[in-house]
Amino acid sequence: MEENEKFDLEELTELFDTKQYSALIRKIDELPPVDAAEFLAVLPEHRAPVVFRMLKKDSAAAIFAELEPDLQTKLVSSLTDREVNDIFEELYVDDAVDMLEEMPANVVKRILKNATPETRAEINRFLSYPEDSAGSVMTSEFIDLTKNLTCAEAIEHIRKTGIDKETVYVAYVTNASRVLEGVVPLKQLLFSEPDQIIGDIMNPNVIYAHTQDDQETVANMISHYDLIALPIVDKETRLVGIVTVDDALDVLEAEATEDIEKMAAILPTDKPYLKTGVFETWKKRIPWLLLLMVSATFTSTIITHYETAIGAYAILTAFFPMLMDTGGNAGGQTSVTIIRGLSLGEIHLRDVLRVVWKELRVAMLCGLTIAAATFLKVFSVDFHFKARSMLESGAMQNNLQICLIICITVFFAIVVAKLVGALLPIGAKRLGFDPAVMASPFITTIVDAVTLMIYFAVASHILHF
Amino acid sequence: MEENEKFDLEELTELFDTKQYSALIRKIDELPPVDAAEFLAVLPEHRAPVVFRMLKKDSAAAIFAELEPDLQTKLVSSLTDREVNDIFEELYVDDAVDMLEEMPANVVKRILKNATPETRAEINRFLSYPEDSAGSVMTSEFIDLTKNLTCAEAIEHIRKTGIDKETVYVAYVTNASRVLEGVVPLKQLLFSEPDQIIGDIMNPNVIYAHTQDDQETVANMISHYDLIALPIVDKETRLVGIVTVDDALDVLEAEATEDIEKMAAILPTDKPYLKTGVFETWKKRIPWLLLLMVSATFTSTIITHYETAIGAYAILTAFFPMLMDTGGNAGGQTSVTIIRGLSLGEIHLRDVLRVVWKELRVAMLCGLTIAAATFLKVFSVDFHFKARSMLESGAMQNNLQICLIICITVFFAIVVAKLVGALLPIGAKRLGFDPAVMASPFITTIVDAVTLMIYFAVASHILHF
Repeated sequence: MEENEKFDLEELTELFDTKQYSALIRKIDELPPVDAAEFLAVLPEHRAPVVFRMLKKDSAAAIFAELEPDLQTKLVSSLTDREVNDIFEELYVDDAVDMLEEMPANVVKRILKNATPETRAEINRFLSYPEDSAGSVMTSEFIDLTKNLTCAEAIEHIRKTGIDKETVYVAYVTNASRVLEGVVPLKQLLFSEPDQIIGDIMNPNVIYAHTQDDQETVANMISHYDLIALPIVDKETRLVGIVTVDDALDVLEAEATEDIEKMAAILPTDKPYLKTGVFETWKKRIPWLLLLMVSATFTSTIITHYETAIGAYAILTAFFPMLMDTGGNAGGQTSVTIIRGLSLGEIHLRDVLRVVWKELRVAMLCGLTIAAATFLKVFSVDFHFKARSMLESGAMQNNLQICLIICITVFFAIVVAKLVGALLPIGAKRLGFDPAVMASPFITTIVDAVTLMIYFAVASHILHF
Repeated sequence: MEENEKFDLEELTELFDTKQYSALIRKIDELPPVDAAEFLAVLPEHRAPVVFRMLKKDSAAAIFAELEPDLQTKLVSSLTDREVNDIFEELYVDDAVDMLEEMPANVVKRILKNATPETRAEINRFLSYPEDSAGSVMTSEFIDLTKNLTCAEAIEHIRKTGIDKETVYVAYVTNASRVLEGVVPLKQLLFSEPDQIIGDIMNPNVIYAHTQDDQETVANMISHYDLIALPIVDKETRLVGIVTVDDALDVLEAEATEDIEKMAAILPTDKPYLKTGVFETWKKRIPWLLLLMVSATFTSTIITHYETAIGAYAILTAFFPMLMDTGGNAGGQTSVTIIRGLSLGEIHLRDVLRVVWKELRVAMLCGLTIAAATFLKVFSVDFHFKARSMLESGAMQNNLQICLIICITVFFAIVVAKLVGALLPIGAKRLGFDPAVMASPFITTIVDAVTLMIYFAVASHILHF
């Protein structure tokens, strides 16, 4: 990120170009791994492995975990089996699994072949959790304690075993069958007397999730309860892993992006924009464009049905864009608000009547305002300047009639649009679909058709065609 | 949140209704504060203070911090000065400031009057930071160490002073002038030998932000570097506060919601949907609806200009909705992608040429696909069924001509829409405006006009009107 580039890319490149490798490696070691990974990514492709091999084993693994999958794959193919294995064993299980999920099958095979049997078994277990489940994002590197330990013993245990754990700031208490019994933050261990017993100071009301839960639910729980980590249990409430707050941040960011993409009629992508190919971007965008284009057939049918009237009152068509856009915008406002509310858990399915009642009143207020503004605009501006030619051409007898038609239509278009915008996302969620799809583009297509039907109905009533 | 309701609301309500207050208070004490706050919020208005007063002082403060501003204000007005003061002194400074910013002026006055002079001075300092700046979200309750301490002394210092700190898991090293010199995670203190010197084990390459930095930048840094807290310094690099990861989560969630609202032509709200009044919701939605409605005047002008042609070729109007919607959708897809990329820091201003070149190719692919699909659809379906009457009415001589006009128009509409969708958000950011406003509704209005101009230009060329 622009604002976050705390490191001097030019200085590193200079050291690299002048082959001052030991100074370069020293500088890289001082950088946060995520920044070091950014530097490796800008190096010429065949030079990145050269630098990477000079890094210390543990910082190499940390930097490796932050690289883009493409570069990870390239690096793996240029390293020896031994080197790959060293990096792999240093990674946290969740990072290793993420990485393997992105890599080509032959590279995965080579990595798993070289891993220790324990690592291999664990990786395979993690790979079997459904995508986007808590199981697939959790890590098994957590601190567990037993009830009978004293605080001093617990701290000693953390000092001995904590170095490889993803967090040491929360410890979990399990019984002999590994069933989760309590939670103890390190803060509490530190503030208790050394001889106090864990069973007495632990909090037995643990907030936890199941391996099958959705990763978004888990991230929302971490955010809701301000946790550093959330324990994940299997069906028998045995502790199998934890999800840490930094992973929750990534999940929430990715889920927000996914919702935004769906709301804009794009199939979700998981790569950054500039790293996605043209053909791939096209594939994510064309399905909805096609679907929405085809469904516009319905609006054509409505217009075709009134061809004679249009021939006689051509001025009616001049307000098509304004009426349809206003309806679409009004519906989009509501649907997007409801979709976001559902996703943040601020709106529940049971709130449907409250939502409809509120939207109805908001819609009537918006409808009245826009109708009044339309009246002023159409009557004062449009008729007296731009549309004069049309009026003088004799097709129209009464400005006021057209003006009335437009105002009535825009009012009802807004009311219908807002009700559709409120009901479709809630209905989708009720039926188990993703509400995010029910946003502007989809709503627009429906609202266009309804608006035109209202328009022609009102017009035929007033103009008697 | 539905999924997160781990507590039994009915059980608590039952205890409350049957006046089993001591059992109720015991249950509430076991709950996470955020859940206890939810329970208080559903109690009848005049009963909430009754329950609240029975709570222990420290849990009362923690629960108070999680309440909605409305209920906080009501509670404060029903408590004595002494009670208000007790709660207030227990709060973290950032929570206290958030709370005061939401409360009516007379309540704020009453609270500040009762606060200790130190608290009052600190609050006033925090209230002076610009809204949405790092200074306004940071807290001053952090752990600071000096270089010359040993690890054992540092841990002892944390045990003595840490109880009121927002996090004890990262400590910051400052010199006599309070200038930030280094950072030591508690993990490292724990894993080092008791007699090691802080100056030797601290990391001097601290990642930090300034009080004036935007809160979104700060939250992005915390997410990017997987931090538990980020230190905030003043202009002289003196440490004045920290922002913790749980606050970063809230900031990122709020900023994503704000972007989504702006993209849907809504002025940003900061209250949950169901807690916002009808009139307030109307006020957030009507400005953009009005603006977009008025700017549609331009499209009316274009259509009015071609009134004679429309009279003769009424079938042309049947494709208005399809052409304009497709253009709007195509432009919306691009603009939303670019806006999100800019906000996540995946796209930078310097990438403008890469973005345009990529969108141009994607647009041409999408344009060709949609044009081909349109050809098939219009030629096979529309002409042979729905539009037959119009065609037979004699206004048209050649189906193929109309079909060609539509295909050419939809191709160019998509190309223009995607270029506009790419350039406007980047341009807005370049000029210092918020790119999020340049999303679908705004793009649609522009693309509508351009599409109609292309449509009539192509049609008049082919049909010679």
